[in-house]
Amino acid sequence: MSKKLTKRSDDYSKWYNELVVKADLAENSAVRGCMVIKPYGYAIWEKMQAQLDKMFKETGHENAYFPLFVPKSLFEAEEKNAEGFAKECAVVTHYRLQADPDKKGKLRVDPEAKLEEELVVRPTSEAIIWNTYKNWIQSYRDLPILINQWANVVRWEMRTRLFLRTAEFLWQEGHTAHATKEEAIAESLQMQRVYAEFAEDFMAMPVVKGAKTESERFAGALDTYTIEALMQDGKALQAGTSHFLGQNFAEAFDVKYVTKEGKQELVWATSWGVSTRLMGGLIMTHSDDAGLVLPPKLAPIQVVFVPIYKNEEQFDAIAEKVAEISTELKNKGVSIKFDKRDTLRPGAKFAEWELKGVPLRIAMGARDLENGTVEIARRDTFEKQSVAQEAVVDTVLHLLETIQEDLFANAKSFRDEHTTVVDTFEEFKDVIENKGGFVAAHWDGTAETENKIKELTKATIRCIPLDALEEEGKCVYSGQKSTKRVLFAKAY
Amino acid sequence: MSKKLTKRSDDYSKWYNELVVKADLAENSAVRGCMVIKPYGYAIWEKMQAQLDKMFKETGHENAYFPLFVPKSLFEAEEKNAEGFAKECAVVTHYRLQADPDKKGKLRVDPEAKLEEELVVRPTSEAIIWNTYKNWIQSYRDLPILINQWANVVRWEMRTRLFLRTAEFLWQEGHTAHATKEEAIAESLQMQRVYAEFAEDFMAMPVVKGAKTESERFAGALDTYTIEALMQDGKALQAGTSHFLGQNFAEAFDVKYVTKEGKQELVWATSWGVSTRLMGGLIMTHSDDAGLVLPPKLAPIQVVFVPIYKNEEQFDAIAEKVAEISTELKNKGVSIKFDKRDTLRPGAKFAEWELKGVPLRIAMGARDLENGTVEIARRDTFEKQSVAQEAVVDTVLHLLETIQEDLFANAKSFRDEHTTVVDTFEEFKDVIENKGGFVAAHWDGTAETENKIKELTKATIRCIPLDALEEEGKCVYSGQKSTKRVLFAKAY
Ligand SMILES: [Zn+2]
Ligand SMILES: [Zn+2]
Repeated sequence: MSKKLTKRSDDYSKWYNELVVKADLAENSAVRGCMVIKPYGYAIWEKMQAQLDKMFKETGHENAYFPLFVPKSLFEAEEKNAEGFAKECAVVTHYRLQADPDKKGKLRVDPEAKLEEELVVRPTSEAIIWNTYKNWIQSYRDLPILINQWANVVRWEMRTRLFLRTAEFLWQEGHTAHATKEEAIAESLQMQRVYAEFAEDFMAMPVVKGAKTESERFAGALDTYTIEALMQDGKALQAGTSHFLGQNFAEAFDVKYVTKEGKQELVWATSWGVSTRLMGGLIMTHSDDAGLVLPPKLAPIQVVFVPIYKNEEQFDAIAEKVAEISTELKNKGVSIKFDKRDTLRPGAKFAEWELKGVPLRIAMGARDLENGTVEIARRDTFEKQSVAQEAVVDTVLHLLETIQEDLFANAKSFRDEHTTVVDTFEEFKDVIENKGGFVAAHWDGTAETENKIKELTKATIRCIPLDALEEEGKCVYSGQKSTKRVLFAKAY
Repeated sequence: MSKKLTKRSDDYSKWYNELVVKADLAENSAVRGCMVIKPYGYAIWEKMQAQLDKMFKETGHENAYFPLFVPKSLFEAEEKNAEGFAKECAVVTHYRLQADPDKKGKLRVDPEAKLEEELVVRPTSEAIIWNTYKNWIQSYRDLPILINQWANVVRWEMRTRLFLRTAEFLWQEGHTAHATKEEAIAESLQMQRVYAEFAEDFMAMPVVKGAKTESERFAGALDTYTIEALMQDGKALQAGTSHFLGQNFAEAFDVKYVTKEGKQELVWATSWGVSTRLMGGLIMTHSDDAGLVLPPKLAPIQVVFVPIYKNEEQFDAIAEKVAEISTELKNKGVSIKFDKRDTLRPGAKFAEWELKGVPLRIAMGARDLENGTVEIARRDTFEKQSVAQEAVVDTVLHLLETIQEDLFANAKSFRDEHTTVVDTFEEFKDVIENKGGFVAAHWDGTAETENKIKELTKATIRCIPLDALEEEGKCVYSGQKSTKRVLFAKAY
């Protein structure tokens, strides 16, 4: 495969697919729609996990683990949820293979080993978890239950794309149980805030917090709160969702608690999740035609040292300096790589670390040794500066912060520039078709209009922003009365 | 369920099952053979994971993630491995459910959505991983590959027990690829050492490092290195294994590399894993009739504070002192819980934290306030001491270390006392039947004798210890010549 990336302006989708593979993030596997997450990609995911896990624990949640399989009879108990996921369920029907009598050395499914009840590979775990919570909850003293699970799930998708839509993906799913409606709603909004904070402060990816319309809600939810990001190609990405599930699952699984006053009440539920899809958002928010651009807070390698030398003596002198500076940087919590490979020229190394999105590159050559300097290059802007060796640590720390802030600011400018307020359907179509991005428009609140607009423009309502202003207006399509603008976009 | 545990001497197996459930570690789920790992149990597993992950990274490994499913044609490629796992494979045959036309509100497998090729839910990942490595390896420069994966796997077991043997379990599986046989063997031995170090230094569980006999090896391995621990009931537990796989998988998946000299060679492989089974070993090594006993290094809560008070004023004064001491302890990295519940009496709290195995309990009452003391109780020995408040931090740090060491020393004494050297088969049967534990005996090296002994005594060869002395002897069963003793035991 050529090292050269397709340009974003030539074919954004092709650029994305190539970048994911060439930067060693992930690749397709022999299993339809399932990916292999390669070590470099997984290292980024681990950083995301660690930070999210910290934030979940700080908000009072604990981790646990529930079975991969959901017996069909449990899966179908909450009808809307079952209906929503039935079409994409991988189903285990047998529990044994045997030698194939017709083909030597091959195996076949043992027809005698058919399960009495089929097992669904979890597409989401509400059913198996609420069936468990039933036994954990008797009284108000057992509430709230605040549990998160890190797990793999399977949704049989027909059109898949690395990270963005895969048959198997990794995610976390929070499942909480509450005594009151208010507390459950507060929890689902809190987790939406946690997701937004993570997206903005760590991924440097600005998001809009909003509520989904009824037709875009999670199957079985009364409300779905979402964070929506905007990619460089003007398409939106749903980056995380938090669901207020009402009492639907408590009803389906008969989960009641005794109140302080001795009454039996159904329990209130939330669930919330983010997945390896975030990797897709991270990649598409910042990267460029030279490859990946990573925000320093999630970069597995924050600084790479590349030595430039003509002989062993020079190499040794450089290596010594690098070791000194590295120790200081590591003590400050900076992650370092010293690229000592003697099989590649410096130029090739520069290109490789640019492709992999390492935020800072420090080159050191014979001239630097003489002058007591190094050359520091920013991945995001390609700016280079010569810095005195004594000033490297401070400069690096400062630049890492600056890059993190700049990436967010740039993504936010892009998002703001690509959020267009429109009042006519002509304008609406034009913006969706040509400029792309979010369109803030009045909507009459009906599923009919929503569907019609989707049919005509492929744009969907991404969310009703939580901070939308009350404003008299007319629906951009039907002309009916509306009181606030919602955000439309084409989406991943 | 009663709070009272069955005694170990009455029924060890019942004691274990009750303890796992009552200490809130895990429970059976609605899915046959699959468990729910509850938050307290999962918190211990997270501590194990964090430490193992650190040790894997320190030895040069990176994490990645490979698909849950293995297409049947890949699964069967390495014949011995396939044969070994075929009988316990969960198989996905369909990818969609649909409304059942005969039962309103129910679902059924959509007969139209049958997969062309069945997918095996991974019982282990050699096949899918080596099929991937094929594309990653061309030249000696691509080697070694040192990858680990944290994942769930499924083996359809007929008789299951929480943590010890479950249809789905969590584990890590390392899969490495090497240019030479020597390097691959060194890697598998290195990982056995890492496992032994983890077991002894963190779980406080002494282990014997050895090699498995041919009949006990992993399916597809040329050598299986194991760490074997001894439980309190005299049965052995295989706690971790590391396999030298030779070139079997490289051959099955045609994975070759070009050497420095330009020759094509097959790649050498290892794999190694530990699982949530370690939780079973941890529980059975240290716990007693009062409940769980946890080594401080893996205890989610290391110190619990229980206030003893008659009125709010006393409570407030105690809470203030607890806050002071807690801050100091947290700064030293000690994990703390202050049990402020007003719904339970101190005695009930004591019993609960004993059941949950918290290493140290600190009680503080009115008298302690007056005297400037606290009462510290060790979970492992039940010893109590009154300690001046200024000395609490030092005492706690010292006791945590002492408990960690004592647990290991006690388990090691038990193991040594229950390792019996025998030279006749009468003695062999007597020890296996009555005293239990490891029996060190000469064996003639044949599978025939091994099977015969297993048939007659239910004891298997746990391992050929790596440090077994060269010693002339006669097989305890056949009388044939033997050069070293091997360890027999009944096992989990
Ligand atoms: Zn633009
Ligand atoms: Zn004994």
